Amino acid sequence: PGKKVLIVYAHQEPKSFNGSLLKIAVEELTKQGCSVTVSDLYAMQFEPRATRNDIVGHLHNSEAFNYGVETWEAYKRGGLSKDLVEEQKKVQEADLLIFQFPLFWFSMPAILKGWMDRVLVQGFAYDLSKAYDGGLLQDKLSLFSFTTGGSKEKYAIRGDIRYLLWPMQHGIMHFCGVKVLEPHICYAPENVSEDKRKEMLTAWTQRLKTLWKEQPIDCSPEWYFK
Amino acid sequence: PGKKVLIVYAHQEPKSFNGSLLKIAVEELTKQGCSVTVSDLYAMQFEPRATRNDIVGHLHNSEAFNYGVETWEAYKRGGLSKDLVEEQKKVQEADLLIFQFPLFWFSMPAILKGWMDRVLVQGFAYDLSKAYDGGLLQDKLSLFSFTTGGSKEKYAIRGDIRYLLWPMQHGIMHFCGVKVLEPHICYAPENVSEDKRKEMLTAWTQRLKTLWKEQPIDCSPEWYFK
Repeated sequence: PGKKVLIVYAHQEPKSFNGSLLKIAVEELTKQGCSVTVSDLYAMQFEPRATRNDIVGHLHNSEAFNYGVETWEAYKRGGLSKDLVEEQKKVQEADLLIFQFPLFWFSMPAILKGWMDRVLVQGFAYDLSKAYDGGLLQDKLSLFSFTTGGSKEKYAIRGDIRYLLWPMQHGIMHFCGVKVLEPHICYAPENVSEDKRKEMLTAWTQRLKTLWKEQPIDCSPEWYFK
Repeated sequence: PGKKVLIVYAHQEPKSFNGSLLKIAVEELTKQGCSVTVSDLYAMQFEPRATRNDIVGHLHNSEAFNYGVETWEAYKRGGLSKDLVEEQKKVQEADLLIFQFPLFWFSMPAILKGWMDRVLVQGFAYDLSKAYDGGLLQDKLSLFSFTTGGSKEKYAIRGDIRYLLWPMQHGIMHFCGVKVLEPHICYAPENVSEDKRKEMLTAWTQRLKTLWKEQPIDCSPEWYFK
């Protein structure tokens, strides 16, 4: 109650299974008294490309464009483009970030990767020697909620999908100091029965009911590669 | 000699270190008598978002948009958008795909991820039960060539970066049946001396000289997670 949640959502179709998972999260969290904001990336036509357009006004070095340096400098002088400033404000205010998407090629859809690439700039999300447990977005939680095309077995190594989560959960969220809750994975919703799909939706509602009591996972190399 | 190479390049600045690596590859492979094509994604303003615009004409199911189903159906009837058809033609003709990019967040920049998401559609790159060693892009080689922001130690688990390569090399290339050569990684070129940078460029030229004699890596779970 009173917690702020940002859901970054990357599916084109409201009637999709991802759309249903989004709807459930908004309804259940709102019912709990949370304040929920949704960044509906396709609906926003969110720009995934990291370009010079992300910097308003002059460049730090116009001779050779370096995206990392330019966005860092622009962040410090308040010169990032409006769409990035808005997303950063949403992140700053959030206690919990939920990423809702269909797994594309063992990873996020490009539009969501573009959100990571462009929003989590140096100075805002991390800084020189401020990374991982020292990252700038501490005291926030994150949760990757996604659907897959294939069955659970298709993604498992020694029975576990966690290897595929390493770049997203450790390489991005942990790097920024954000704590990571267990991922929520709905395997192959397109290939199961209507009953099974309903079960999956109910399971998501149930999980959300006790979400705030969950402990973050140990998002360390040791946990992933034990 | 006579081999065809497609370089998919994702950097905004020709004067960057990635730009130098691209230039070297084009020059060296051309000198060898290879036919080299470059997809310069930022210069092309390549679209990374997977949307309804990728399908020309009517949808298979206009009630609920399913990107995977729609692009598969569109591929079969020759109804994919022009930019995708062009990229697929380049892939089809290539013996070797080189991906040249700066590592963004333990993965590809969104613009390159969008190339994977949109170009490698079902029917073209894989199909029902035609994946991994049965994938549709067999007899092709691939090579991920990238720069990093941090030092080698920053990405290593038990001394090795390979865990981060799993989604890209196994989840995408191997899935499509494409064989994978050892990645070529230049660690933190922005943080080393000019001499060291020159050494890195020379090493890339040297590697390219004997590239066609290399054996693909064993891109299996056993190799990655031994």
